Amino acid sequence: MYLGAQLFSDEEYASRLQKVRLHMDRQGLSAIVVTDPANIYYLIGYNAWSFYTPQMLFVPIEGEMIFFAREMDANGAHRTTWLPPEQIVGYPESYVQRPHLHPFDWVAWALRQRHQIAPASRAGSVGLEMDSNFFTPKAYRALFNAIPEWKLVDNFELVNWVRLIKSEPEIQLMRQAGMVCSEAMRAAIDTIDVGVRQCDAAAAISQAQITGTDRFGGDYPAIVPMMPTGDAADTPHLTWHQGEFGNDQAVVIELTGAHNRYHCPLARTVSLGDPGKEVDYVAEAVAEGLNNVLDAVKPGVATRELASVWNWTLAKYGLEKPSRLGYSIGIGYPPDWGERTVSIRTEDESILEENMTFHIIAGMWMRGYGYECSESIRVGANGAETFTSFPRELIRK
Amino acid sequence: MYLGAQLFSDEEYASRLQKVRLHMDRQGLSAIVVTDPANIYYLIGYNAWSFYTPQMLFVPIEGEMIFFAREMDANGAHRTTWLPPEQIVGYPESYVQRPHLHPFDWVAWALRQRHQIAPASRAGSVGLEMDSNFFTPKAYRALFNAIPEWKLVDNFELVNWVRLIKSEPEIQLMRQAGMVCSEAMRAAIDTIDVGVRQCDAAAAISQAQITGTDRFGGDYPAIVPMMPTGDAADTPHLTWHQGEFGNDQAVVIELTGAHNRYHCPLARTVSLGDPGKEVDYVAEAVAEGLNNVLDAVKPGVATRELASVWNWTLAKYGLEKPSRLGYSIGIGYPPDWGERTVSIRTEDESILEENMTFHIIAGMWMRGYGYECSESIRVGANGAETFTSFPRELIRK
Repeated sequence: MYLGAQLFSDEEYASRLQKVRLHMDRQGLSAIVVTDPANIYYLIGYNAWSFYTPQMLFVPIEGEMIFFAREMDANGAHRTTWLPPEQIVGYPESYVQRPHLHPFDWVAWALRQRHQIAPASRAGSVGLEMDSNFFTPKAYRALFNAIPEWKLVDNFELVNWVRLIKSEPEIQLMRQAGMVCSEAMRAAIDTIDVGVRQCDAAAAISQAQITGTDRFGGDYPAIVPMMPTGDAADTPHLTWHQGEFGNDQAVVIELTGAHNRYHCPLARTVSLGDPGKEVDYVAEAVAEGLNNVLDAVKPGVATRELASVWNWTLAKYGLEKPSRLGYSIGIGYPPDWGERTVSIRTEDESILEENMTFHIIAGMWMRGYGYECSESIRVGANGAETFTSFPRELIRK
Repeated sequence: MYLGAQLFSDEEYASRLQKVRLHMDRQGLSAIVVTDPANIYYLIGYNAWSFYTPQMLFVPIEGEMIFFAREMDANGAHRTTWLPPEQIVGYPESYVQRPHLHPFDWVAWALRQRHQIAPASRAGSVGLEMDSNFFTPKAYRALFNAIPEWKLVDNFELVNWVRLIKSEPEIQLMRQAGMVCSEAMRAAIDTIDVGVRQCDAAAAISQAQITGTDRFGGDYPAIVPMMPTGDAADTPHLTWHQGEFGNDQAVVIELTGAHNRYHCPLARTVSLGDPGKEVDYVAEAVAEGLNNVLDAVKPGVATRELASVWNWTLAKYGLEKPSRLGYSIGIGYPPDWGERTVSIRTEDESILEENMTFHIIAGMWMRGYGYECSESIRVGANGAETFTSFPRELIRK
């Protein structure tokens, strides 16, 4: 192991796999192919910036899992995964980034060599992560062409859904990510000011994110710090530039703390000078809406109920927000810290359960300015636990 | 525009599109669907951390390009792209992360509404980026199901190949990225030491990468700083932890400078105390090999010739390196700063041309230790131009 210690107990990993197999059984799957780096980390602990070349975890409903990665990565995989060496297989370097080959051509052959492919009459349906980043149509076609025995179907984010409810050790890691997040947010608030270059503020935030605290070092964030500023804050995902913050602007800060790949995101808005009365008005509406939503959080409540509470409060102020109010969080790899399962919006059909964790984000992208305020929370038995404790208001400098 | 100025001239963007269309014609394509964020940035300048939800640039062989993104991102796209508003289309929020819908279901319908889909008899072959990281099988199926008129084929990294030879303004940006890179490497060498936490070194590097220089602010790197250390340096892609650097270890540093999304990566190895004679031996072999390779660089030389020069030098020392010696660089988005076209290895069939740019990386992942030394270069008319100027040797502290 890399740090001399396994992050989660053998029992926890066994329980995760058991839950995954329960869902496989319910969905009629004889195996799944896991390609999302967050799902691979969840199941076997493997953690490296190697996901820019194809990798997969093969999970049959019975028998041993096998992890496939590029040879140079497979060589060191034992440093982060508990999987024994015989279940870690490297594909040859000559399959990397070649126009007429794909690593999964080789992987399919290797699965066959290892007798992992049952005859067509018994092979059944194999569930793929059909909408996972880093799983491409070319990878899909490699499997389709080489393993005609398998009926390839969508597993509909099966492992992501198992990740939805966190164990106690996971909650601990998220609280620690929350401590890292608080340091990063303080660095942001301290640094952002009139005349400061955006890149210098981003650099200070990044420094704080990665240093973390004395006890809990920071991990790399799945999304870089965002600072939509002034009239460019009408859209959320522009990254920094080297221009300076001006006076009379509202600067939105959206960042995360990360610790051992667990994420705790947070958004606040800083006002430089006087950004205008509309910002104050939206800030007041958002604070009331967010407080009402957090008051409504408890096990048994429908996520769409949270969305309604939010919409009603906003409507009182004559405002509306067309995008979702939040989403499930936990393990994150670039380019996203969301789990791609529950979204807090009226179309969602989920019911809150204890130890679900969400980023509830009131992002208001208005014409000519923007305002954001958010909380990362755990659904506790008696209500919401926030992972950080910044006041839910416009921060004046 | 976000910074009040377009990064490249109208003529340069027109010339890029023209080259892309020339290749489309040669490959028998009536249109291409561009999903790689680096390719989208190259063609229309659009730049935001929005690629975690599906987006596409539709490029017909004649007529106007259309860019599709999530509504909240499409609203602000005009801040970074020169594309006129009528060619930027947002898909509704209700298509984001829903199990039985995909944004490209909507996009396919929108293309039809806009009369972009010719009758089957004339629609021809449409080239997709079948191995691009953010183009999933589900996205592919959405197009396949909704647009039966199109014959969907692989475009084999068509736009990536057009990016291979850089324009003068691009070379300028890469030199500026080189200046940012030098600051980051200096921060790394200054910070890494016995007793320093890995995360604190990564934080200092990250700070330097993002601050950049007074004139050239840093952009976010497509890959986080890597510091494989001691016996864990037998594998290249592990990220930092919060443990301290020990004595008598070789610490490999692989990082990049980035400026306006152009990248200049660099690797060096720092020795703390006495990591052993093998490291010195490998360092000597690598320096000689790298020098020989750089001496061999000029227009007209085959990339496999560079690989041979490298292999012969290494063989003299009784060493070999199974992985590729380098790859084309330029624009980068997470998770990769490589262009996924030319690799420097014996299987490659490319010939060097002026203003190609490469990361030539001698990464030696040995048993019990590792050593890396690299250069980012431009192929100049008379030989290699390096973008940074650190000595090609083991750095002793």
